[in-house]
Amino acid sequence: MKITVLRLGHRFSRDKRISTHIALVSRAFGAQEVTFDAADPDIEKSLDRVSKEWGGDARITSITNWKKYAEDFQGDIIHLTMYGININDSIKKIKASKKDKLIIIGGQKVPSEVYKLADYNVAIGNQPHSEVAALAVFLDRLQEGKELNAKFQGKKTIIPQEHGKKVIEQGR
Amino acid sequence: MKITVLRLGHRFSRDKRISTHIALVSRAFGAQEVTFDAADPDIEKSLDRVSKEWGGDARITSITNWKKYAEDFQGDIIHLTMYGININDSIKKIKASKKDKLIIIGGQKVPSEVYKLADYNVAIGNQPHSEVAALAVFLDRLQEGKELNAKFQGKKTIIPQEHGKKVIEQGR
Repeated sequence: MKITVLRLGHRFSRDKRISTHIALVSRAFGAQEVTFDAADPDIEKSLDRVSKEWGGDARITSITNWKKYAEDFQGDIIHLTMYGININDSIKKIKASKKDKLIIIGGQKVPSEVYKLADYNVAIGNQPHSEVAALAVFLDRLQEGKELNAKFQGKKTIIPQEHGKKVIEQGR
Repeated sequence: MKITVLRLGHRFSRDKRISTHIALVSRAFGAQEVTFDAADPDIEKSLDRVSKEWGGDARITSITNWKKYAEDFQGDIIHLTMYGININDSIKKIKASKKDKLIIIGGQKVPSEVYKLADYNVAIGNQPHSEVAALAVFLDRLQEGKELNAKFQGKKTIIPQEHGKKVIEQGR
């Protein structure tokens, strides 16, 4: 099952850090690709830098026509929105399908077509909070936490510690 | 069990949106209080506005001496850090205790004392991503998803929809 994250409505200066967090969460929580409806070199650089240092091969891409992209997608389209069905009531059905997943995250103003186009509109609780949080919790529930045990082959590897930091760097 | 989130190292202009997301995630995922080591009226306003509209009574506070605050805390102190023990290996023990929880989230530069002071240093995966994501996944795992079924008594209430938006507003 391939997981792609589609981030809509990225506004450059205002959203830079939030969108960077979305890209990093996508990578760390097992998505193979994250795509934006606007190419932002800063975010691409951030993800590339992390992947070079810590490993993994998550791709970051950009598209010009998100609607066509979603319509052409072969698999399940999941739109994360506080107006959707609570994940506690919807995740079981979504997990039962082994099809590829396209996870759509909008900003404040999501075009109403997204709600229609999505196979599932899923709420990570029906309260306003954060698209970064929503994405992480969805990916964690979808993969039952196994994504957090994935091995990344990078220059740096953390050796988990009860107290303190231990990092092994290749070639040192 | 009372849950408090302590956000360290908030830098005003740079972190405003990330810290706002932390405050909103704290509220939406069942924390009763979120405290910052710097008072930022903008974040306080954001949380108050959301609580007025959507309900809930999560408090936002600020402190001047985080170390004393943490040392005086009665309960389990959990520091979320990519250098810690993977949540998959540590959550069971943490859940077994019914004590109040203080969840510490640092920025890029966390004082090394935090690692010593914490009862548990927990990694939401040993990869760099997002403190917003880490907080949400930790709170979701700690409360086994039940936090997302909590009812908030606000002016607005969402009626979850398969496709589209439905919001009931009190007095309309």
